[in-house]
Amino acid sequence: MNERIELYEVGPRDGFQNIKEYIPLETKLEIIDGMIAAGLQHIQITSFVSPKAIPQMRDARELTARCLERHPEVDFFALIPNLRGAQTARELGMKNLSYVVSLGESHNRANINRSHAESFEGLQRILESGDDLEICLDLATAFGCPFEGKKSSDDVVQFLQQYLELGIETVNLCDTIGIANPAQVRSTISAVQQAYPSLKLQIHIHDTRNMGMVNTLAAVEMGVLDVQATLGGLGGCPYAPGASGNLATEDLAFMLKEMGYDLSVDIPALIALSRHQHQVLPPATYSGHLWAVT
Amino acid sequence: MNERIELYEVGPRDGFQNIKEYIPLETKLEIIDGMIAAGLQHIQITSFVSPKAIPQMRDARELTARCLERHPEVDFFALIPNLRGAQTARELGMKNLSYVVSLGESHNRANINRSHAESFEGLQRILESGDDLEICLDLATAFGCPFEGKKSSDDVVQFLQQYLELGIETVNLCDTIGIANPAQVRSTISAVQQAYPSLKLQIHIHDTRNMGMVNTLAAVEMGVLDVQATLGGLGGCPYAPGASGNLATEDLAFMLKEMGYDLSVDIPALIALSRHQHQVLPPATYSGHLWAVT
Repeated sequence: MNERIELYEVGPRDGFQNIKEYIPLETKLEIIDGMIAAGLQHIQITSFVSPKAIPQMRDARELTARCLERHPEVDFFALIPNLRGAQTARELGMKNLSYVVSLGESHNRANINRSHAESFEGLQRILESGDDLEICLDLATAFGCPFEGKKSSDDVVQFLQQYLELGIETVNLCDTIGIANPAQVRSTISAVQQAYPSLKLQIHIHDTRNMGMVNTLAAVEMGVLDVQATLGGLGGCPYAPGASGNLATEDLAFMLKEMGYDLSVDIPALIALSRHQHQVLPPATYSGHLWAVT
Repeated sequence: MNERIELYEVGPRDGFQNIKEYIPLETKLEIIDGMIAAGLQHIQITSFVSPKAIPQMRDARELTARCLERHPEVDFFALIPNLRGAQTARELGMKNLSYVVSLGESHNRANINRSHAESFEGLQRILESGDDLEICLDLATAFGCPFEGKKSSDDVVQFLQQYLELGIETVNLCDTIGIANPAQVRSTISAVQQAYPSLKLQIHIHDTRNMGMVNTLAAVEMGVLDVQATLGGLGGCPYAPGASGNLATEDLAFMLKEMGYDLSVDIPALIALSRHQHQVLPPATYSGHLWAVT
């Protein structure tokens, strides 16, 4: 029962990008420092995207440089949409990158304005540009697409094949719209594990329909021990009051620790930081419970 | 996989009692009518307590009489603290009652000002007063007490013995402070099932630490198919902003239906009613997601 869980904190990317008002670089760094002090060892700090597309991420270069300088021991990673983003990361010395493609092609077009073929070719170009990068494939809408509806485990297995042939060794199954249920999480993971036994899986569940905890636990109990979450459950949409965000890192960590899993984090420190984050950030959407009740 | 789930809606009691401002009787009846229209068949509508203790429940007699008159087919039930409450229920023609005792004796004193012995004798008197009532024992703080800390499955098994000898056939395991985790829920239920194979169990989980869904599902997957929740997740404390309430009926129902369980409820109707409830009630605390996001 003392299995080791690796928490992948993605708040500074997936949480911050949902806040329209620019968060000062020093505030971002202060929160990231706090995450590290609370024991988080894998932090997605930014995305190397066009500042026009996501103005909040316009400080990606400086933020990355300063994080790497301050904390050389921490696994910082970033999201990249294309070769240009990969090259920026490489110049800065960041090796772990997330490359996102949506299982639903219509969501892929809506999200990054690309066909499936274009996304695949984009990754091919990145991998051909050098073998010094570790690329995790973020499979968005892996359980359901806002335009195409539910996705099956067969859809996931078939879609992944060409990416694995390309050399991808880690896939992050993302429930982008929070539509998965525990039975579906189990059957999808089981199918992927059977088809690709050596593939390393991560899980990233949004809390939209209150299933962030239950679906993430379902994945953990299937052996997916690398789990993504955001401090405070920061995420969602600030223009939809009440709409939930991501799964809260501290809520997930508390549950897993209580269940006997081995985690490196300091829960009271996470809760205090989450409460602090709520105070210093512009208005945002949170799904976390612990920061609010304890 | 098509197991039948019975939802026990307890919002009109456990939700409403957390709202200080009196909710007009007609508003209560309108919400209860809506619950029935949405397919809910078991509804805890009130508690027969002193109006001094819980002024919100001062209309218990009239509310009960009108509910029974309007919907003779529905399983309405109420919470009773003592023989007097049982006799009121009996006079009104209500047969299904919940009698609450806390596993933690200090919580029992704080909650109902009784020792364990006094609570036991109180139930004894009710059962001796006639055999026309169906009493469910609500075991509060079954997984942890705010004063005494965590409770073990042995604590639960030992505590229940004298109540079962008294003739109790149904026990509702209540996570009053939302401190249980799925591993604990499984081990507690397993121990109780082994000790008392013919005992009928219900589950009632608060969402305080974001584990309402995950713990209730853990219970369901252990075979506890009678589950309590409140519309919208109404509950908690209106004076602690952000503090979570109960588990939301519609969130739970949505997940279980998506997983293939058999439930009688109409989810869109529940969500619409939940949103309506939020509009017509005084300020309150909700933990539900679906009413807010869809």
